[in-house]
Amino acid sequence: MPSAADAAPSFLYLPGSFAVGESLALEGDEARYLSRVVRARPGDRVTSSDGEGTLATLEVIESRPEVHVRVLAVEHVPEPPALRLLCGAPEGERGDWLVEKLAELGVTHLVPVETERVRWPAPLRLDRWERLTVAALRQSRSAWRLQLCEPLGLREAVAAAGPGERWLADPAGTPAHARALLADTPVAGAVGPSSGFSEPERNWLSEQGFVAVSLSASRLRTETAALALASRWASSRA
Amino acid sequence: MPSAADAAPSFLYLPGSFAVGESLALEGDEARYLSRVVRARPGDRVTSSDGEGTLATLEVIESRPEVHVRVLAVEHVPEPPALRLLCGAPEGERGDWLVEKLAELGVTHLVPVETERVRWPAPLRLDRWERLTVAALRQSRSAWRLQLCEPLGLREAVAAAGPGERWLADPAGTPAHARALLADTPVAGAVGPSSGFSEPERNWLSEQGFVAVSLSASRLRTETAALALASRWASSRA
Repeated sequence: MPSAADAAPSFLYLPGSFAVGESLALEGDEARYLSRVVRARPGDRVTSSDGEGTLATLEVIESRPEVHVRVLAVEHVPEPPALRLLCGAPEGERGDWLVEKLAELGVTHLVPVETERVRWPAPLRLDRWERLTVAALRQSRSAWRLQLCEPLGLREAVAAAGPGERWLADPAGTPAHARALLADTPVAGAVGPSSGFSEPERNWLSEQGFVAVSLSASRLRTETAALALASRWASSRA
Repeated sequence: MPSAADAAPSFLYLPGSFAVGESLALEGDEARYLSRVVRARPGDRVTSSDGEGTLATLEVIESRPEVHVRVLAVEHVPEPPALRLLCGAPEGERGDWLVEKLAELGVTHLVPVETERVRWPAPLRLDRWERLTVAALRQSRSAWRLQLCEPLGLREAVAAAGPGERWLADPAGTPAHARALLADTPVAGAVGPSSGFSEPERNWLSEQGFVAVSLSASRLRTETAALALASRWASSRA
């Protein structure tokens, strides 16, 4: 849904740190993207992100056959307050687009949680998911990339979340729209797996300060609830 | 994300009207679902929706080899105020899950709009999409099913929307979270295609009363913006 961004320069993912004035030889996806997809030419400006807060303005020196760029400027974007999603396993192959969409919507951490009723398929396709977060970072032109965590038990995942607001996606909760989200407060959200959290799990989450919020009048699949919660958060930080 | 609904009876999609006391012979998906998936037995209660507001409570008379049910009760759920999404074409195969997720989130009408920059691939996979809306109706246990429209030009789509609130997904808008959605007001939302609405299209939509709302601090793909807008609406009607 680009608008003002239509004319924005190409956006690359370049991990690692580099200094103003430094020349870089690009390889792999980013080189292919510049030379073949956007057909960049010497003198073109492009932007890169390392996914950890550093945006660089680059000038293309050579675009084919080799791709060389020079660093014109480096800017650091402060880390945003955590938007951490603790998510039970959805059905089937829905994990892929769950990752893609959470990354686009600015969720900072995805923690797959193992629950009483459903476990994530092992091993997780973390390599594939990392590639999806990179593609989403390019798409959303973000300084920060979604961090994917190894699966944790529910208690470990909550312990790792640390202080902040705690939301539980639950059709019996108060409308998510009515709940304020402070701009500078970290927040953790829990979404049950395909067959839902068990009653003991829901009670325990409530004891841990997770407040039930309703995302829709109808029942949502796990990945849809996660997306709706991420959208709710994104709209407060838009 | 079921919770209280865990123990809910099976939910079927049965178009057509029927009277209390009537016996029905089920076929196809619904019969297979009852006899093989949930292995319903005589005496079991199931709920059905016709996707047009009528919910029926059914008792299983025979579940295999033939599947017969009797209508115990019929209830009509009033049509909700329209949540109509005018959506430009997303990239690739993303239309499928766009339909699935909009249906889950309670959007009432999806209108694929042809835009200056992007057209929907012809022919649309409307048969496949209708099946996805049925699956989402079962999942969300809804009385009303998402209506899929034939693609329209932007002007025709806006004309067909009729009166009500008008939202435009636009990163330059005011945060969607801050915009109130009246519970009983129909609303139409416009989301640009993969490369965005053109400047003239955006200007024309503004003249037509579409108010720009921002859904995220980052750029969203078409289908993600549509989902975020639908989630925003759903949270107000949760």
